[in-house]
Amino acid sequence: MISVTEALQIILNHAPRASVVTLPLELAVGRILREPVSADRDFPPFDRVTMDGIAFTWQPTPRRLRVEGRQLAGAPQGQLQDRANGCLEVMTGTVLPQNADTVVRYEDVTLQEEAESVWADVQVWPERAGQNVHRQGSDRSQHDVLLEPGVRLSPAEIAVAATVGKAEVQVSHMPRVALIATGDELVEVTQAPAPHQIRQSNSHALQAALHQEGIGAERYHLRDDYDALKTQLRALLEAHDLLILSGGVSKGTSDFVPDVLADLGVQRHFHRLAQRPGQPIWFGTTASGKVVFALPGNPVSTFFCFYRYVRPWLYRHLGVDFPTEYAQLTVEVSFKPALTYLLPVRVNSSPNGVLLAVPLAGQGSGDLANLSQCDGFLELPPDQDTFPAGASFPFFRFRRL
Amino acid sequence: MISVTEALQIILNHAPRASVVTLPLELAVGRILREPVSADRDFPPFDRVTMDGIAFTWQPTPRRLRVEGRQLAGAPQGQLQDRANGCLEVMTGTVLPQNADTVVRYEDVTLQEEAESVWADVQVWPERAGQNVHRQGSDRSQHDVLLEPGVRLSPAEIAVAATVGKAEVQVSHMPRVALIATGDELVEVTQAPAPHQIRQSNSHALQAALHQEGIGAERYHLRDDYDALKTQLRALLEAHDLLILSGGVSKGTSDFVPDVLADLGVQRHFHRLAQRPGQPIWFGTTASGKVVFALPGNPVSTFFCFYRYVRPWLYRHLGVDFPTEYAQLTVEVSFKPALTYLLPVRVNSSPNGVLLAVPLAGQGSGDLANLSQCDGFLELPPDQDTFPAGASFPFFRFRRL
Repeated sequence: MISVTEALQIILNHAPRASVVTLPLELAVGRILREPVSADRDFPPFDRVTMDGIAFTWQPTPRRLRVEGRQLAGAPQGQLQDRANGCLEVMTGTVLPQNADTVVRYEDVTLQEEAESVWADVQVWPERAGQNVHRQGSDRSQHDVLLEPGVRLSPAEIAVAATVGKAEVQVSHMPRVALIATGDELVEVTQAPAPHQIRQSNSHALQAALHQEGIGAERYHLRDDYDALKTQLRALLEAHDLLILSGGVSKGTSDFVPDVLADLGVQRHFHRLAQRPGQPIWFGTTASGKVVFALPGNPVSTFFCFYRYVRPWLYRHLGVDFPTEYAQLTVEVSFKPALTYLLPVRVNSSPNGVLLAVPLAGQGSGDLANLSQCDGFLELPPDQDTFPAGASFPFFRFRRL
Repeated sequence: MISVTEALQIILNHAPRASVVTLPLELAVGRILREPVSADRDFPPFDRVTMDGIAFTWQPTPRRLRVEGRQLAGAPQGQLQDRANGCLEVMTGTVLPQNADTVVRYEDVTLQEEAESVWADVQVWPERAGQNVHRQGSDRSQHDVLLEPGVRLSPAEIAVAATVGKAEVQVSHMPRVALIATGDELVEVTQAPAPHQIRQSNSHALQAALHQEGIGAERYHLRDDYDALKTQLRALLEAHDLLILSGGVSKGTSDFVPDVLADLGVQRHFHRLAQRPGQPIWFGTTASGKVVFALPGNPVSTFFCFYRYVRPWLYRHLGVDFPTEYAQLTVEVSFKPALTYLLPVRVNSSPNGVLLAVPLAGQGSGDLANLSQCDGFLELPPDQDTFPAGASFPFFRFRRL
């Protein structure tokens, strides 16, 4: 049985880079950028006024200034006529007028009408030129790369792309994913289960988790029948890039999934990992680059395996680093088997900036209802029995901030 | 000028609870639950086998057991005939057969065929009854509330809802939101701006940010013309629950927004806050319960004000607590004005579980490109000048984990 670390290495080595698709900017938030985005002109593109007030040519001696006029937002650059004693009213975001080099905000100016002119008395005379002016190109220069390929487009990057005129962006293509629940004991959500039956929940959870990654995936339910499984999985493999199965991978007599996948030419890279929960996880790929995760059917196992293995695979495939988080145990935890232990926890950010992880008492991998108290899990290494309070471990979050 | 704390109090006091809408479970991830979800039967609904192996009636003395047959997943509960010396093969997830109380996994059993019977030699005889059986109702009892109203539906809650047969759930209705950019200097993303013009970016950023909250919002661009603004804002107020404007709220001569809103009967609750960036923020409501945020037009101000004010308003409106995060400054920061300072930072989770915040050198509220280096901002209180390395402050994240 291989370790969690080895398994991850294998998984990430079988995550070829996604192809590229061009999307309208409106649909691109959350996607992974696949082209550099550069400044089409300087940032800011002109000497930009940063306060509403008056603009003039600075001189060391304070003086009264005559208001020559007003430059509105959206108007071309104005021109100050009298560099010695004139000023122009300007607004935040406008182009600094020609011949002006300094702005004083209205709060520091008294305007008075006298003899058909308006005069500005500056209460707080600036110590030098350049006040309240954001100089052209001081943030970025034309042709500077503003966004590198591989960044996930947050609302901030959307704003940057908009401002340089990228109405469309090249991003990673999302894989076509099929979610496949196996098990004759499963019925639909809308059905009333007989005493020995249970409703499907894993494929719903996976569908929701993929939805949060921006992927729409279809759900399928296949029966525990070798031939039917083979026919249906062959068709699903053809139509999708990624298959995520749940159930049918442990040692039960109806656990046909590994054999059927082998039969269909899916190369197994591993089956069973030294971890709890989720030991029977199976991973394979086809010669044509299709990827198959067959996850154990216990709800908690399916869930944790998705976040520990499938999501990192997805990130690598899309071309973005998986962000590592760590959290501190609040109480000692003991776990004796020589397995990696995925410990369900609730986390909270303490006022000193530490992410605290409170272990959840649970009933093991079948305790689905427990997940609703849970924010994610800590990964506790296999070479320790005791994990003291205050120690930190990698934390895998499934509840979005 | 009121403080950030006072402003938030006012905002949260004007966030009436959203109405309720019924959604199919497939569309409900990320939404706020508005009804309790209860167990329709016990969890688990039967004594559930947790390992593939054999089931039998435990006795203190180890003995050889004859395999009577096999109980498959999805089959009704079987019955063990010979309580003294019989066993049944069972699979993970199946109902424990009648008369059985204990399961030993295949790994601890040797099966041998002898005289037309199959015999099980148990290598590791359990110390007591009940092994590998997940007792009916041991997680939750029928009618227990599994999900409380007010929870945000993560994939875990979707699984819980599915398993109790909630094909539809009652969740908070999302507000109808209009995003309104003002300013004659603005042109569309697809246009080539003249030297004094800039492309719209704020409404794109806000649209993306709302998309991440599950809200589709329309973008509008209004000119700096009092009468046109009034006509258009009146129509937008009628058609939406929430208006988010950017620009037109500072002291410039074309900053008509506050006057137009007053003219339309929107009651102002505050205008200008003791903060940087984003001082000129305006907030008001109508008698009919419409809400208007008019944010300053500088890109960083718009952005930070959305995450500091609009998002908490939205959470309160939808009926979920806003999660507070804290992060530790890595270097000393100095900020003299008696204003709350929203400091742009990049964060990383250190291996000891501390969220570290690295301040970003920026050019102030106009430096849009800087946002792409930024994960969020720290809120530094107004009553301090110096913020030492190692001190922690509330952190507002806009880059999703």
